[in-house]
Amino acid sequence: MSFKVPKGTQDILPGQTEKWQKVERVIRDLCNVYRYNEIRTPMFESTELFQRGVGDTTDIVQKEMYTFEDKGGRSLTLRPEGTASSVRAYVEHKMFGSADQPVKLYYTGPMFRYERQQAGRYRQFVQFGVEAIGSKDPAIDAEVMALAMDVYKTLGLTELKLVINSLGDKETRDAHRAALVEHFAPVKDELCADCQSRLAKNPLRVLDCKVDAKHPAMATAPALTNYLTADSATYFADVKKYLDILGIPYEVDPNLVRGLDYYNHTAFEIMITGDGFGTITTLCGGGRYNGLVEDIGGPESPGIGFAMSIERLLLALEAKGIELETENNLDMYVVAMNEEAKAKAVELVANFRKAGITAEMDYLNRKMKAQMKAADRQAAKFVIVLGESELEQQAVNVKTMATGDQQQVAFADLASFVQANK
Amino acid sequence: MSFKVPKGTQDILPGQTEKWQKVERVIRDLCNVYRYNEIRTPMFESTELFQRGVGDTTDIVQKEMYTFEDKGGRSLTLRPEGTASSVRAYVEHKMFGSADQPVKLYYTGPMFRYERQQAGRYRQFVQFGVEAIGSKDPAIDAEVMALAMDVYKTLGLTELKLVINSLGDKETRDAHRAALVEHFAPVKDELCADCQSRLAKNPLRVLDCKVDAKHPAMATAPALTNYLTADSATYFADVKKYLDILGIPYEVDPNLVRGLDYYNHTAFEIMITGDGFGTITTLCGGGRYNGLVEDIGGPESPGIGFAMSIERLLLALEAKGIELETENNLDMYVVAMNEEAKAKAVELVANFRKAGITAEMDYLNRKMKAQMKAADRQAAKFVIVLGESELEQQAVNVKTMATGDQQQVAFADLASFVQANK
Repeated sequence: MSFKVPKGTQDILPGQTEKWQKVERVIRDLCNVYRYNEIRTPMFESTELFQRGVGDTTDIVQKEMYTFEDKGGRSLTLRPEGTASSVRAYVEHKMFGSADQPVKLYYTGPMFRYERQQAGRYRQFVQFGVEAIGSKDPAIDAEVMALAMDVYKTLGLTELKLVINSLGDKETRDAHRAALVEHFAPVKDELCADCQSRLAKNPLRVLDCKVDAKHPAMATAPALTNYLTADSATYFADVKKYLDILGIPYEVDPNLVRGLDYYNHTAFEIMITGDGFGTITTLCGGGRYNGLVEDIGGPESPGIGFAMSIERLLLALEAKGIELETENNLDMYVVAMNEEAKAKAVELVANFRKAGITAEMDYLNRKMKAQMKAADRQAAKFVIVLGESELEQQAVNVKTMATGDQQQVAFADLASFVQANK
Repeated sequence: MSFKVPKGTQDILPGQTEKWQKVERVIRDLCNVYRYNEIRTPMFESTELFQRGVGDTTDIVQKEMYTFEDKGGRSLTLRPEGTASSVRAYVEHKMFGSADQPVKLYYTGPMFRYERQQAGRYRQFVQFGVEAIGSKDPAIDAEVMALAMDVYKTLGLTELKLVINSLGDKETRDAHRAALVEHFAPVKDELCADCQSRLAKNPLRVLDCKVDAKHPAMATAPALTNYLTADSATYFADVKKYLDILGIPYEVDPNLVRGLDYYNHTAFEIMITGDGFGTITTLCGGGRYNGLVEDIGGPESPGIGFAMSIERLLLALEAKGIELETENNLDMYVVAMNEEAKAKAVELVANFRKAGITAEMDYLNRKMKAQMKAADRQAAKFVIVLGESELEQQAVNVKTMATGDQQQVAFADLASFVQANK
């Protein structure tokens, strides 16, 4: 009988988890200075929430959800993204009633999509995301983008490109939708089956199609930007103004659409450029979702957010040769030469740990030489060897592994000695 | 349309998440000094893993699992506990081949059990657990217990009781099983249906039954301790010796069995005692599981571990009136009196944040008075108000909210001023 990690998922093992911890610490610290507070929602929600909140016509809802019934007959779905759950919590807990709007939330945690397997894509993957709900100030759009960029920059990524677009308001989109239907009508039969159906239901998403990407009608499709209402255009101009103030360069891409149904006004992606990177170039995506809170049963509360994959972030760091500094060093290895010395080792190791010193010993009753090797492998900074004479003298030579220096220290002074010299 | 968090689950909201973060930081730091490394396994595994690894006759497997089929027809189950997954990963990634044994792992994350709803019990709950796999040294049993105790102690919990028992080895359990069957045979018909079936399959678990807890035969049931083999008795004595060396008081309870099938030798629970606590008194449970690695397809690799619920830990802290210190203070609130000042506010807020200073501003175009109120509500340490004259002078009065003191500071010096005085 041999068991494997479920297809499309992965274990994150010691050696890797330290990098995740580091990334999470950076995220937590940045969210704190930006005043985003953490929210933790369950791994699953009622299926209907995602149908409503992510959109019935999206690939996620149509093809990629892990949906199941619990023993009470409820249809539940493992969350495929974080916005619907955050908005659900905003409404359920009446956060719209708080005097402090927008409510600024962040989350990190697993998301689940049953996607075709490919490099860097997992069926369980981890997203960090933020949601600022309750303001339609273009300055908050800029803040959200700045925070996303700051995460990458703080971790050492430099070759980044912020691509933005405006999807306008409802009026904008209605006019653009009509123009798209008209534009693609003559070539409808040449498009893929999905696109033919999209053209009826949600023509904007035709522009997102990977199958038809090279069809000549794609390049000449009417740009949404040309249909922006005066209000939408002003809003977009203000977003750009604030990005300029923040000193964040950006590119406007009128074809940037985003895969989710709920976006309007600001849409953005952060791409990684330069060498060492394969086809995965989009690190982060986000946008404004005025109207979503109402869709989920709340009062009018405009929102904006983004989500980024931690797996892709780590791939990007690796591709760029950036090593994260992690703190996981072994300060002290205690070698014990006999049964009596081992009892002392247990006591001393506990004392070191109480003082915040990382300490380890042998649990396999190995000979001294094997214990010394273990200390070496684990790159211990100091080693002590306990035998009969050490127990008698209640003191031991502390060996500094890097230099080979030895110094005799009384048992009682060991922790303070290591603390002073580590 | 109104959506709710799925039954038996909860949202953890800002104000609460900071406590979770604090607990996780303590766990991470302690695991580091104890040299346990983090592992992250997927939220779901093949159903068979839990049938095999948790045990077919357990309540968890029989009644409480979230089992579903993915779109590929695989039977998957949301993990009800962390040991089976950790052991699966230990085997799959051939960690038994590492020179450094035992492999010392820890995890924190959601677990899922479809249980009857009651206070302090959730269907999605978070466990912190450790697994030390690859050693049968009684000193590692003591270390594992010491680590669990240290988590509680570091967070300020004092009225704790460590209860231990030995379940012995296979020979012990076979002899005890026979004695139990013999003991209960005359009263079999008086036991609950579950126990009648347990008596055939796994009589040890009869002792765990809540329904039959008061049956007179329970009190007189043969104690496992009386059947310990010489080896098992020595092992147990050594565990106690190391606990003594570590200065950790304990109680031996011969009736402590633990609900999972896989335990042998050491079993333990940590209970909270004293006032302010309801029926939930067990905070942590663990034990040794020699044989489990083989059951899951690996080579002989004895292991020991524990799991504790973070929800219960937080309940215990609350019951004892212990407030965790969290770091989530607002250093600076920037008030803007007009459109031009707002552009400057965006810039200054970004500068503060770059310097690691927590900073906030208004995103609702509120009047100055409302902005000042927001600064108050959010307990900002400093406030600055930007208007025409401030923009002209490129300087602003920094108000220290606690004292009302004001001091004029040039825009260029703001970040260093706050850093020096916060």
